[in-house]
Amino acid sequence: MTINIPAEIGMCVEDVDTPALLIDLDAFERNVDRMANFISQAGVRIRVHAKTHKSPDIALYQIAHGAVGVCCQKVSEAEALVHGGVRDVLVSNEVVGQRKIERLAALAKRARVLVCVDDIDNISDLDEAAGRYGVTLEVLVEIDAGAGRCGVQPGDAALPLAQKVDASANLKFAGIQAYQGKAQHVHDFNERKAAIDAAVDKVRKTVGILKDAGLDCDIIAGAGSGTYQFEAGSGVYNELQCGSYVFMDADYGRILMEDGRQIDDFENSLFIYTQVMSKTKIDKAICDAGLKAQSVDSGLPLIYGRTDVEYIGASDEHGVISDPDDKLRLGDKLYLVPGHCDPTVNVYDWYVGVRNGVVESILAVSARGMCL
Amino acid sequence: MTINIPAEIGMCVEDVDTPALLIDLDAFERNVDRMANFISQAGVRIRVHAKTHKSPDIALYQIAHGAVGVCCQKVSEAEALVHGGVRDVLVSNEVVGQRKIERLAALAKRARVLVCVDDIDNISDLDEAAGRYGVTLEVLVEIDAGAGRCGVQPGDAALPLAQKVDASANLKFAGIQAYQGKAQHVHDFNERKAAIDAAVDKVRKTVGILKDAGLDCDIIAGAGSGTYQFEAGSGVYNELQCGSYVFMDADYGRILMEDGRQIDDFENSLFIYTQVMSKTKIDKAICDAGLKAQSVDSGLPLIYGRTDVEYIGASDEHGVISDPDDKLRLGDKLYLVPGHCDPTVNVYDWYVGVRNGVVESILAVSARGMCL
Repeated sequence: MTINIPAEIGMCVEDVDTPALLIDLDAFERNVDRMANFISQAGVRIRVHAKTHKSPDIALYQIAHGAVGVCCQKVSEAEALVHGGVRDVLVSNEVVGQRKIERLAALAKRARVLVCVDDIDNISDLDEAAGRYGVTLEVLVEIDAGAGRCGVQPGDAALPLAQKVDASANLKFAGIQAYQGKAQHVHDFNERKAAIDAAVDKVRKTVGILKDAGLDCDIIAGAGSGTYQFEAGSGVYNELQCGSYVFMDADYGRILMEDGRQIDDFENSLFIYTQVMSKTKIDKAICDAGLKAQSVDSGLPLIYGRTDVEYIGASDEHGVISDPDDKLRLGDKLYLVPGHCDPTVNVYDWYVGVRNGVVESILAVSARGMCL
Repeated sequence: MTINIPAEIGMCVEDVDTPALLIDLDAFERNVDRMANFISQAGVRIRVHAKTHKSPDIALYQIAHGAVGVCCQKVSEAEALVHGGVRDVLVSNEVVGQRKIERLAALAKRARVLVCVDDIDNISDLDEAAGRYGVTLEVLVEIDAGAGRCGVQPGDAALPLAQKVDASANLKFAGIQAYQGKAQHVHDFNERKAAIDAAVDKVRKTVGILKDAGLDCDIIAGAGSGTYQFEAGSGVYNELQCGSYVFMDADYGRILMEDGRQIDDFENSLFIYTQVMSKTKIDKAICDAGLKAQSVDSGLPLIYGRTDVEYIGASDEHGVISDPDDKLRLGDKLYLVPGHCDPTVNVYDWYVGVRNGVVESILAVSARGMCL
């Protein structure tokens, strides 16, 4: 059987096989430090989103550096994280269907488990399963903060859900989930800020309605790596859910600050390491990272540190690189900044952690493919 | 640890957890039968492309139904197929770098292994490794049949490569690889045919040059599911490499025949089974299959058998479904036809084989993620 590990500890990075998913460990650690500093100054909590990295190792490192726990989006992802030692997991998503609810309740025997709801009958299903396993599930009522996906309308619609959770024997009402996912990748600063200002108003109103009904929100959660400063400064949100900041990607690189410059609060720490595997044309090279080595939903990858060559096309197993000055040779290796980090991580089994040009760690992407 | 299998043998399909990758076994078997019939009438061979399904089970089924062996694109993919019982594998791609070449040569101790070349020094590397392992690697010289990716220019450029292979002690010259990948998804019939007509001319010329130099091509290989009829009827190609025909996808569904109708030679047999996991809006539903449950490089998935609802947007873990008549309810399950089958399969660990509404088989996607 093939284990398909592209590297060994102690190897020079140049010897790592391709395509491989590399972490620049220094850059990664600086990103985590910067967020920890920001959080402590802003006076809010961070519950980091593990859907980005799908790795208990990375989650535990983030927890050791100030995170109160993790979020994830799927029950099977939560299982992989708990299996890897994480003991405080919010499934920041609705969990629907008997099999998944059963697994969620069972998992709560091994860790603190929180989940979101936006449907009244779903609350009964969760309560019943929790009762059967003798556990308490903590529940956030999700409101649609503007992303147009899950969540009830902000305001009055949240109240009956929160009341039903509160009245359920095996559930604990924990607060509000209000993630504005659509705002994260809005490139223009003012537009991005306006989207979060609107979300904050909705959250404030909803929290007020619940409070008037005697329901306090311990957790008022949301925010991603594109907008976290707005939520943190809102005076309403108290728990951020950023994920991508640990890695960043090409699309986050297009987000602009107020002065029109690209954001620079975090660094690219995640790279697809690729190799020229065909060079039969003067002005073109073919590399070994195509559609199965990344997700191109948010655009093609960038070639890191190079302005003389450009990644211009992806097919299943090949990337086409424009090489107008005929600089590349067979076997040359390049670092790609993925277009979109989360779904790119999801096609790899291993991270290769590199420091000072040497492989220092090989980490399993334990929740890779955990979509149930 | 979580195994993340969405179904059990004998279960009704309605009970399968979501998202899951389903195979309609009847449709799949009809596709394989139709290709077998075509091949036997056309008087050519088929070496099916396993990069589509990444499953030794499916490969062995195809071999039992007329295929002479399989193609794949990566050494690690070849290892997974050989591990699963396949004994005749062409890596229809260049293999570059010491680690990969080592693995390829070692694999040839366990199976017939063929590989492509488009670089003169790469031939020495392959020969040396084959000698070290005491094996013979069979080698196809790849020419660029018009896709603009790998391969030397057709014609004279192929000769020195073929001669060097032929003169290498541990390599056997096996023929020409000439896959026109770009033509497969050209929707217009005449344009698609013109691309293959051009490729056929290039291949004929190249084969003639090699023949004049005393080098016979046992294998003259190419063709995919969008163009195979042209290559099969060319009188030049003798081995087809179709992969997608076993499953088909939304993008193949857009390919047109000569009379302007959609192609109908093969059926959709692959589906993403998904579930409505949030329904808080009258005209919209959110399902649980987003960017990590498929690849959207060739467009969004279609909802099979429904005209009243439409999949209109994908984020990491959510799909947005337009539901103008408010037909969908929480927990409703839908069949999606993936936009592009190959990279969609690459994010799943398991196929769920279904016949007459009952789960009949659960097959590992053994070469999932095998990108080395």
